[in-house]
Amino acid sequence: MTYCVGIKTDAGLAFASDSRTNAGVDQISTFGKMRVFSRPGDRWLVSVCSGHLGITQGAANRIERWGRGEGERSWRSVETLREAAALWGAALREEVAEHAHLRLAGVSTDASFIVGGQIGAEAPGMFLIYPEGNFIEARDGTSFFQIGETKYGKPILDRMIEPGMSLATAAKCLMVSFDSTMRSNLSVGYPVDLALYEAGSLSDAKTWRFSAADPYTQEMREQWGRGLREVFERVPAPPGA
Amino acid sequence: MTYCVGIKTDAGLAFASDSRTNAGVDQISTFGKMRVFSRPGDRWLVSVCSGHLGITQGAANRIERWGRGEGERSWRSVETLREAAALWGAALREEVAEHAHLRLAGVSTDASFIVGGQIGAEAPGMFLIYPEGNFIEARDGTSFFQIGETKYGKPILDRMIEPGMSLATAAKCLMVSFDSTMRSNLSVGYPVDLALYEAGSLSDAKTWRFSAADPYTQEMREQWGRGLREVFERVPAPPGA
Repeated sequence: MTYCVGIKTDAGLAFASDSRTNAGVDQISTFGKMRVFSRPGDRWLVSVCSGHLGITQGAANRIERWGRGEGERSWRSVETLREAAALWGAALREEVAEHAHLRLAGVSTDASFIVGGQIGAEAPGMFLIYPEGNFIEARDGTSFFQIGETKYGKPILDRMIEPGMSLATAAKCLMVSFDSTMRSNLSVGYPVDLALYEAGSLSDAKTWRFSAADPYTQEMREQWGRGLREVFERVPAPPGA
Repeated sequence: MTYCVGIKTDAGLAFASDSRTNAGVDQISTFGKMRVFSRPGDRWLVSVCSGHLGITQGAANRIERWGRGEGERSWRSVETLREAAALWGAALREEVAEHAHLRLAGVSTDASFIVGGQIGAEAPGMFLIYPEGNFIEARDGTSFFQIGETKYGKPILDRMIEPGMSLATAAKCLMVSFDSTMRSNLSVGYPVDLALYEAGSLSDAKTWRFSAADPYTQEMREQWGRGLREVFERVPAPPGA
C-alpha cells in the first residue's frame, strides 16, 4: 500500500508521500513516490502516486520522456494546470493499455496520482487523477486529496486543514497524519517525502525526506503522542461508568 | 456501514456499536446493533454485528429463538464461551445458507459479529465471528476487536488500550474512537450503544445509549476537539518550513 496527501491552501501547496512498497509481507521495499518537474520562473509541478508500482513508475517515466522531446505532450509546454493533469491521465492510460496482459492475468493495474503546481500567471492548483485517467480538480470546499491507505490519517486532516493555514502548519498536519497512519498500518512506512510550494513563487519548493530516526520525526511523534495522552486523561468518562 | 468495537481488559469487557444502516445514501435508518443475553448469577453475553442487516438480524433472531427452546443450541445451556461463539457462528452460517439466493443475485451476505461475556467460573472472553462462521478468540496481546468501518477510529485504540485500563477509561476510549469515525465517515452515526461488564460479576452490565445531542457526547466531543487543537498547536513544524 501507500499513503500520499496533497493540501492546497491560500499560501500554496503541501505534498507528502510515504515510500513503502509491498508485494506481500515478505517483499517490502523503499521507493520514493514523489516527482518534481520544475522550470524556475515559469512553472513548478509535483506528482505523488499510489497503486501498482510498475504502472506508476512507467507513467511517470512517460511524463519525463515526453518532457525531453519537442512535442505538445510535455510538462514543459502545457499552458494550463488542467492540461498538465490531462498529461498525467494520458500517461497513465497508455501505461495501463500497454500492460493489459496484467489484467488478463488477474493482476490489478489500478494506479492514481495527485498532481499539483503552478504554471505562469495561473493560480496554483491540484488534481486527483483516477485509475482510468480522468481527473477532478480541488475547488471551493476541497482543500486536500488523499490516495492509498487514506482512512487512518483522515481524522486529523478533517479537523485541522483550513484554507487560511500556513504552509508550515500544513506540513505539520501532514507529518501527524502520516505518523498516525504508520502506527496503525504496516503497509505505509518511512521515509516520508515532503514538499512545500509557496503560491506565486514559480521557484523550487522546499523539500525534505524524513526518516523514522530523524530528530524532527522523533520529537513530533513524542510530543503528539504525549499530548494526546494528556488530552485523553482530561476528557471525562461517561457519567456513571 | 457500521462501526463496532469490543475491548477486553483485566477489569472486564467494554462494547460499543453505532446504529446507522444505509442501503445507498437515500436509505439511511437507525438500528441498534447490540444484543445482550443475560441470566444474572450464571452468565452474561453480548454481541455486536456488522454487515448485511437482514443477515445479522436473522442470525441474532436465531440465537434468541434457540434460547427459548430446550435444545443444546441455546445461549442458556452452553457451558463455555467458546461454545457460545460456535453458536453465533452456526446461526450466521444457517442464515447465510437460507438466503443463498442473495448471492446468486450478486448481493453480498457478508456479516460478522463480536461476541463477548462470561459464563460461570470461566474467565471473561471475547470472540470475532467471521462471515463464514468460524471465529478467533482475543488472547494474549489482543485487547480489542473492531468490525465495520474500522480504520478511522483505530489510531486512538492503538495508542490508548492496555490490559490494565479501567472500564471507565475503556468507555472513554470507545466514545473518542466513535466520534473520530463519525466525523470522517457518514455511514457511521449516533446513537452509540455502550455496555460495560465487570469481570466476575455475572450480573447485568451497565448500558448507555448516547445520542449526538446528549450532554456527555457534546462535552466529550468539545473537550477532545479543543484538546487536539491545543496539542497540534504545540507540536513543532518541520525545521525550515
